[in-house]
Amino acid sequence: MDLQRIVEETWNELADERGSGNPARYIPALALVDPRKFGIALATREGEVFCAGDADEQFSIQSISKVFALALALERHGPGLWEAVGREPSGDPFNSIVQLEREKGIPRNPFINSGAIVTTDRFVDDRTPEQAVGDLMSRLRRMGRDESINFDEDVARSESETGSRNRSLAYFLADFGRLMNPVEDVLSVYFRQCALAMSCRQLAESSLFLPFDGTDPVTGQEMCSPSRSRRINALMLLCGHYDNSGQFAFEVGVPGKSGVGGGILASVPGRASIAVWSPGLNRAGTSMLGAKALSSIALKTGWSVFSGRPPQI
Amino acid sequence: MDLQRIVEETWNELADERGSGNPARYIPALALVDPRKFGIALATREGEVFCAGDADEQFSIQSISKVFALALALERHGPGLWEAVGREPSGDPFNSIVQLEREKGIPRNPFINSGAIVTTDRFVDDRTPEQAVGDLMSRLRRMGRDESINFDEDVARSESETGSRNRSLAYFLADFGRLMNPVEDVLSVYFRQCALAMSCRQLAESSLFLPFDGTDPVTGQEMCSPSRSRRINALMLLCGHYDNSGQFAFEVGVPGKSGVGGGILASVPGRASIAVWSPGLNRAGTSMLGAKALSSIALKTGWSVFSGRPPQI
Amino acid sequence: MDLQRIVEETWNELADERGSGNPARYIPALALVDPRKFGIALATREGEVFCAGDADEQFSIQSISKVFALALALERHGPGLWEAVGREPSGDPFNSIVQLEREKGIPRNPFINSGAIVTTDRFVDDRTPEQAVGDLMSRLRRMGRDESINFDEDVARSESETGSRNRSLAYFLADFGRLMNPVEDVLSVYFRQCALAMSCRQLAESSLFLPFDGTDPVTGQEMCSPSRSRRINALMLLCGHYDNSGQFAFEVGVPGKSGVGGGILASVPGRASIAVWSPGLNRAGTSMLGAKALSSIALKTGWSVFSGRPPQI
Amino acid sequence: MDLQRIVEETWNELADERGSGNPARYIPALALVDPRKFGIALATREGEVFCAGDADEQFSIQSISKVFALALALERHGPGLWEAVGREPSGDPFNSIVQLEREKGIPRNPFINSGAIVTTDRFVDDRTPEQAVGDLMSRLRRMGRDESINFDEDVARSESETGSRNRSLAYFLADFGRLMNPVEDVLSVYFRQCALAMSCRQLAESSLFLPFDGTDPVTGQEMCSPSRSRRINALMLLCGHYDNSGQFAFEVGVPGKSGVGGGILASVPGRASIAVWSPGLNRAGTSMLGAKALSSIALKTGWSVFSGRPPQI
Repeated sequence: MDLQRIVEETWNELADERGSGNPARYIPALALVDPRKFGIALATREGEVFCAGDADEQFSIQSISKVFALALALERHGPGLWEAVGREPSGDPFNSIVQLEREKGIPRNPFINSGAIVTTDRFVDDRTPEQAVGDLMSRLRRMGRDESINFDEDVARSESETGSRNRSLAYFLADFGRLMNPVEDVLSVYFRQCALAMSCRQLAESSLFLPFDGTDPVTGQEMCSPSRSRRINALMLLCGHYDNSGQFAFEVGVPGKSGVGGGILASVPGRASIAVWSPGLNRAGTSMLGAKALSSIALKTGWSVFSGRPPQI
Repeated sequence: MDLQRIVEETWNELADERGSGNPARYIPALALVDPRKFGIALATREGEVFCAGDADEQFSIQSISKVFALALALERHGPGLWEAVGREPSGDPFNSIVQLEREKGIPRNPFINSGAIVTTDRFVDDRTPEQAVGDLMSRLRRMGRDESINFDEDVARSESETGSRNRSLAYFLADFGRLMNPVEDVLSVYFRQCALAMSCRQLAESSLFLPFDGTDPVTGQEMCSPSRSRRINALMLLCGHYDNSGQFAFEVGVPGKSGVGGGILASVPGRASIAVWSPGLNRAGTSMLGAKALSSIALKTGWSVFSGRPPQI
Repeated sequence: MDLQRIVEETWNELADERGSGNPARYIPALALVDPRKFGIALATREGEVFCAGDADEQFSIQSISKVFALALALERHGPGLWEAVGREPSGDPFNSIVQLEREKGIPRNPFINSGAIVTTDRFVDDRTPEQAVGDLMSRLRRMGRDESINFDEDVARSESETGSRNRSLAYFLADFGRLMNPVEDVLSVYFRQCALAMSCRQLAESSLFLPFDGTDPVTGQEMCSPSRSRRINALMLLCGHYDNSGQFAFEVGVPGKSGVGGGILASVPGRASIAVWSPGLNRAGTSMLGAKALSSIALKTGWSVFSGRPPQI
Repeated sequence: MDLQRIVEETWNELADERGSGNPARYIPALALVDPRKFGIALATREGEVFCAGDADEQFSIQSISKVFALALALERHGPGLWEAVGREPSGDPFNSIVQLEREKGIPRNPFINSGAIVTTDRFVDDRTPEQAVGDLMSRLRRMGRDESINFDEDVARSESETGSRNRSLAYFLADFGRLMNPVEDVLSVYFRQCALAMSCRQLAESSLFLPFDGTDPVTGQEMCSPSRSRRINALMLLCGHYDNSGQFAFEVGVPGKSGVGGGILASVPGRASIAVWSPGLNRAGTSMLGAKALSSIALKTGWSVFSGRPPQI
């Protein structure tokens, strides 16, 4: 299979639609991004990375960071995390608080905002916010093989200043006694984590542990056990796009996680890690062109976790 | 891989737990079933069926029938079905009406009861209830290669007599103008569909189109297109166990559909179709031993749609 | 106080607005009513009835009947009714089912549809539907001092034919075991009760027990104890207009009960019973002109249960 | 009517039940209050105050302060307040956030916590928190004719330290743009307002404007217009006890407002203002003995806004 050709063809077919969808505007740093940006990067087991468009430009990965935070929180805190956060789709938007009241402060899953705040709290554990952020950065730099990976300070500050909804969710969790650390400490890590700036290439490379049973097949670095990586993939498939997860599974057919910065990370078990970026979002906060690109790559490659065709490797 | 050994070992390991969980008791016909029944059947591409325990005894497949009804409704009515029913996990129990009010009579997905009632209505289409039931039976007999497959009249009658919640859901849908046919006509088909009696072997064999891209690999019979079978698998993974779907995906890792009769049907894309049966249910209405058996088989075979290991065929 | 002048002035001031609001159209019999109808009747302790406009024309009293049904159910079944239906405002529309699921089939109050269905069921008690309807009619004829009071058979039939939502609510209640009688029996009484045809004059006269501590001050007929009539007034004030009850209490300041036929019954404790009728409804299903008329009469008379002024009688 | 005797008899009848119910324990200052405290004060138009028990001991009036805050916010900000907060019962507990999400940050009424936070925000208006608190204190001292009325600094500090739920509600409101002032400014006033310490006597005297059309009948001080005081009474009756308001209206029959400190303020239009205090609460956060005392006084005096009996003064 000529993956470079597939990636390029996909980019070309969709190039005319650049600018469609609605970019997030709630903070200036996101609103200022050129809505016509469009990048694709596909990384394989063999260490190859096939790119198109703005694949090397960094963008705010936002909620995609929840995948890394989950892996690291499980590593640090262990399965006890699952006593504080569920593993079921919520059927609600990313920032909904309704379910949280009904279920006494146990978020449905680690990918809705409330669940991600709990996850970040458990990743912080008994450390200071600075120690936790330092650890997060060094881990991502190692996984992405790039010492320059960092969070965007402007974005982090803006997130904090405009973060009333997340603050409301965090205090709600605190009211139920669900946080180990003070609300503002947890949020200070959460806002920086969401402000991580990475390129499609960096994202695809640093997440190869997901499709390959927990271990980066290129560097041999183990991020988690095979069973844990499968479970993270399961959560991505069921909950990675909030109340649009079913639609994504239906159209694309592989685990994915979207961010309001316009990025989507897809994990194709046994095959590849794919990152796409285009700022315009659909109603549910998923990149419109990004989802189309992944759908097209899935069609062209025949990749789908639901496919019965014998693998073509 | 010695699948017969895996199936038997799984059965033996769990045999002592027969009778655990709570069998459905809302109708006499279900309450009378021996709670210690336990069967497993695994059907492969090559036409082999590996069995253990009560794999040849028929039981009430209940909501597993929603998978067949969905495939047939899509065949008859086309993708217009998706205007009347969604494709997202609901986050609510199987018989919840809350979401239905908020979303003006559009059920979240075809596997919760309200969505299944709409699906059945579209399968009935412009036919009489008797014609629709006749069509359903002849299709299932062909797929299961067994002319004796039928619904249990006692169960169907009991379902109808005790079906106040389903009747409530159906009238609610009718109030929003979501049904093509009269409520009692739709329900008369729905209750008979839920009362289908099949054995694990029959279930596994008749559902081979699911893991094999829409076509029974043994008979060559085409049930639906590859794309449609992948989508049905996606819906099963995301919504097949109501508000327990995340847990099932997390533990088992393959598409499945449970029924309150204690059956679970699992589709392992590219590998096999597996049916298990044990009447005791967990809180969410999924067979307790059945889920454990599938989890064990998944572990032993390494089968998971989220696994990155190269296939071993 | 010249009550005849107040009633006439009120009518005249609002006459130009006749036809405003949206009449109920869900059944032909209601859709055919002249939207410009407008009647007022005010009955006092002394037996006087002050009228204006179409005060002697019968209309479909619809949900106003729930007040009589409540009084009669309490009389027949006693305070045991309160085990099956609550006494709190629901904060939801009249036909909402959401709260019912959450609170396991106990309706919030007897004036939302689900609560009224339970109330009717307890009024039917161990009788046939025909006996219950016969009893209801004879009671209303006695209270209204008019043997011609009856229900409209066309309206009752249409209600039954189009009553999917009420049927859904009733089956939902039945599913929780909240009804003593078969669903269709209860509904057959409920639909006839809602189809009662009365004029403003008849309504005002037959409900004098409400403002006068349970006993009609003109005939001396005792309908219920003082404590019970006060409680029915309390329920009317808190729940008589569904999710518009606060607005009505705020603007008008006396207990009232609206019906989608455009009628409103108001009880002014110690003073009068007032019935108004104008088919055009507001968003919450309360007669738009009717509410304005009652508000104007309240202003002109100074009548309000929240007023500190010494009574002027 | 011998009101002193009625007040004393009521106290005596209930004295044995002192200590029943569950006092609020969420802050130390409330948990330390002797649960056997029990006071009653009844103030009349003529300036008489009839007392029993601990009527002169100050306690934390908590949510009763919402009544004063509402009157002052309306005075300062005018009816524009009603664009930011509704006037309907919520059907939910005092601190629920569910409705707030669904209705986009417009609280149902000014007596649930979210609505009270908005009300306080509008009372603050364009002033500093200190100016607003100063104004509140001077107004209450004038109305209560007691310069010593103040808030309890310990309670206010504890409220702030443990106020995660209220903080969550406030940030939620801020996220919808519903607050004029910064969240922490509004909360600093809100927590001090809730920490107001007053005795039954002071409460009863300072709230005489409620039953007497907006003007204190003793001092002649006008707090608000007759129409506004009636509306505040209406809101108290419908929403003064959260999801227990119907029960209170049903049992007591007059407008009231409860606080978790165990106080209840009741306004009997045209008759009296009554304050009771006993720390033990029922499930809905209303003083158990307090509600019984008011119910008993209502029975003995015949006072009820729903009574048809001619006034006996």
